[in-house]
Amino acid sequence: MLAPAHGLRTQSYAPRRQCHGTMNADGWGVGFYPAVTAEPARWRSNRPLWADASFASVAPVISARCVLAAVRSATAGMPADETAVAPFQSGRWLASHNGVIDRGLLGPHPAAESVCDSAQLAAHLFAFGPERLGEFVVGVGKRDPGARLNLLVTDGRRVLATRWTDSLSVLRADDGVVVASEPYDDDPRWQDVPDYHLLEVDGEVITMTGLEAP
Amino acid sequence: MLAPAHGLRTQSYAPRRQCHGTMNADGWGVGFYPAVTAEPARWRSNRPLWADASFASVAPVISARCVLAAVRSATAGMPADETAVAPFQSGRWLASHNGVIDRGLLGPHPAAESVCDSAQLAAHLFAFGPERLGEFVVGVGKRDPGARLNLLVTDGRRVLATRWTDSLSVLRADDGVVVASEPYDDDPRWQDVPDYHLLEVDGEVITMTGLEAP
Amino acid sequence: MLAPAHGLRTQSYAPRRQCHGTMNADGWGVGFYPAVTAEPARWRSNRPLWADASFASVAPVISARCVLAAVRSATAGMPADETAVAPFQSGRWLASHNGVIDRGLLGPHPAAESVCDSAQLAAHLFAFGPERLGEFVVGVGKRDPGARLNLLVTDGRRVLATRWTDSLSVLRADDGVVVASEPYDDDPRWQDVPDYHLLEVDGEVITMTGLEAP
Amino acid sequence: MLAPAHGLRTQSYAPRRQCHGTMNADGWGVGFYPAVTAEPARWRSNRPLWADASFASVAPVISARCVLAAVRSATAGMPADETAVAPFQSGRWLASHNGVIDRGLLGPHPAAESVCDSAQLAAHLFAFGPERLGEFVVGVGKRDPGARLNLLVTDGRRVLATRWTDSLSVLRADDGVVVASEPYDDDPRWQDVPDYHLLEVDGEVITMTGLEAP
Repeated sequence: MLAPAHGLRTQSYAPRRQCHGTMNADGWGVGFYPAVTAEPARWRSNRPLWADASFASVAPVISARCVLAAVRSATAGMPADETAVAPFQSGRWLASHNGVIDRGLLGPHPAAESVCDSAQLAAHLFAFGPERLGEFVVGVGKRDPGARLNLLVTDGRRVLATRWTDSLSVLRADDGVVVASEPYDDDPRWQDVPDYHLLEVDGEVITMTGLEAP
Repeated sequence: MLAPAHGLRTQSYAPRRQCHGTMNADGWGVGFYPAVTAEPARWRSNRPLWADASFASVAPVISARCVLAAVRSATAGMPADETAVAPFQSGRWLASHNGVIDRGLLGPHPAAESVCDSAQLAAHLFAFGPERLGEFVVGVGKRDPGARLNLLVTDGRRVLATRWTDSLSVLRADDGVVVASEPYDDDPRWQDVPDYHLLEVDGEVITMTGLEAP
Repeated sequence: MLAPAHGLRTQSYAPRRQCHGTMNADGWGVGFYPAVTAEPARWRSNRPLWADASFASVAPVISARCVLAAVRSATAGMPADETAVAPFQSGRWLASHNGVIDRGLLGPHPAAESVCDSAQLAAHLFAFGPERLGEFVVGVGKRDPGARLNLLVTDGRRVLATRWTDSLSVLRADDGVVVASEPYDDDPRWQDVPDYHLLEVDGEVITMTGLEAP
Repeated sequence: MLAPAHGLRTQSYAPRRQCHGTMNADGWGVGFYPAVTAEPARWRSNRPLWADASFASVAPVISARCVLAAVRSATAGMPADETAVAPFQSGRWLASHNGVIDRGLLGPHPAAESVCDSAQLAAHLFAFGPERLGEFVVGVGKRDPGARLNLLVTDGRRVLATRWTDSLSVLRADDGVVVASEPYDDDPRWQDVPDYHLLEVDGEVITMTGLEAP
């Protein structure tokens, strides 16, 4: 999040590949799975990541086997709240969303953490079954052809992500796998995920599957 | 809000009559109707009222014919967000809620500003018709007998409020009428509104009507 | 602040002429002089201007004869606090600073609102005499040749500003004079203030005076 | 901080022994020493501890051999900023202050983190030598007889604290030593530190030394 030259801290003010919006200064969040607990811990804020002195100080002390982190560029009209920032959570699952969706088509979900479109989308996904992410995205994409549906979920073991109109990359590094909206450095092993594809990471195995575009 | 000895600023840390909670430090909000605009302006925050140097500086400059202000004591589990703080708004109408309601009974409302129970309740009230506040509260109270439903709404002309398990008072002062959770000074003209009653203020006319208790 | 196409709200994420920094998302502030009060009212925040729903709602209701507003891009290492955001105040005077100054050369000032370099600089200026802004800037510039010293002060009647390495413009509009870091629209009457100059606005009279560059 | 019935979370809204102020809702902070790093990590906020969902989620994951935590009740007129919240830091040292001091007598310190009186006091202490805490407090107490100077410092190994007009207690528990403004539970091993005394904790050794009262 902090160390790479083009990590999330830099992406909060100067993303390189982002298709929509020029910065991500409306908040940041991270969820991570310590070895000993069943559910992830979460730290979220509605302030810019670069301005968070506490996270910069404490983050180096925290270690985890699996981390989901996000910076937010709020869609106009959405609440500027901490609860509107990814990752959203349901039990062991975490989810983040880079995009936009018509809330009217989804309908409000009683378990959503925020009225924000991404939080509503996450609540619908958690109820649908996050392990069926590809199916979920194709279905929502049919109902809302204007939706942008880059979604990423994890339960601390598997990672599933969709590229659905915005950028998405994956890196198999020496010590693990990274899925990111854009490469955070110039490592030649970064691979682009093609648009309208589902990415699955399960241990060492990385799979990409084409999804039916709208 | 600021000047009276027991005004909202003091009530944010030391309310005198409040039945539930010992302070109201989870946010504050105000909506007011300038003479020239159709809809109210709103200023809300999720920080304590006493700590807000900007409001203390700017408030004396603002004048309005009708003001609805609130301080918040968040129910455990509700979001600590700015959008969860009253007053909630729908067009010309503002609403505040002092109490608690089972969100599961209400169901999520697509127009709610926050997933917070009070925001959901306000959205249902706006859809039902805020001018029918008494009828609304009796209906909700039947569905959720444990609900506490002190509600207050205004469109800038009329004020309607219910006392439904917590304190409520009204003052006919020389320059207007004040409806408040508790008297902000020792003026002998403050009147208690009896429990399970609807209060209506329309110009000079103040009416109290008994409501069917649950 | 909000209405012009390239006003402060836009400058908070996309300034056009700014020499240092690419955005101004670390806070915003405004001070203004209502006709009836001796001292200005102030509203400040350490969050981005574009995300402030309360200011967007309330600002249209407030009128003033003189306004000083600023958006902040924090220098690395400076506190991300509300009190570090301009305008700074001393009695009737307000001040803002676009630049950087070595705090070690200034020494800490007992009346400063924040340990931030700009707040320390403003405290020194208030003590020196804000009406002698040009002299102050030349003196500080000699002691710290690397300083960037675009400063702007007002007492609600006169406006004084220095261009000292960053952009500065002035507009004589039909209803008043505007001094700004950059033009907020394409009005052909905007004039650039030359570098190392003092600008004075006193009623209808606009004066520019060269300052001794370091 | 969170688990005990009368820990800091409870003390943030309902302290039992506090001599000044009725709650501590103006912020909270914690510094802690992970085994592997030379300097402590810090997490601070200017919001109430009870409202911080991120700290409640992440704290259980963090372990440390030495922790200094505080909740803040701001003195009127002091900034409501994050940088005004203890613990203050200088290299390996952390400090917190429960009390009040006349800033005019101290003079502003160039290394202070905030213009707040406690931050100024901490900067003076760090410069004087935090290991000479007792001498420092006696000297400041002579210059400002109205000062309240409950101070606590640590470098991750030793803990030094002064009781100087407010409450202070110490607990030798099975797994370590706790120094606190008030007992967080009813363990009979809690001992009161007498007023105007210095407490030192060095490994297993606890020492209390009388200080020359003003």
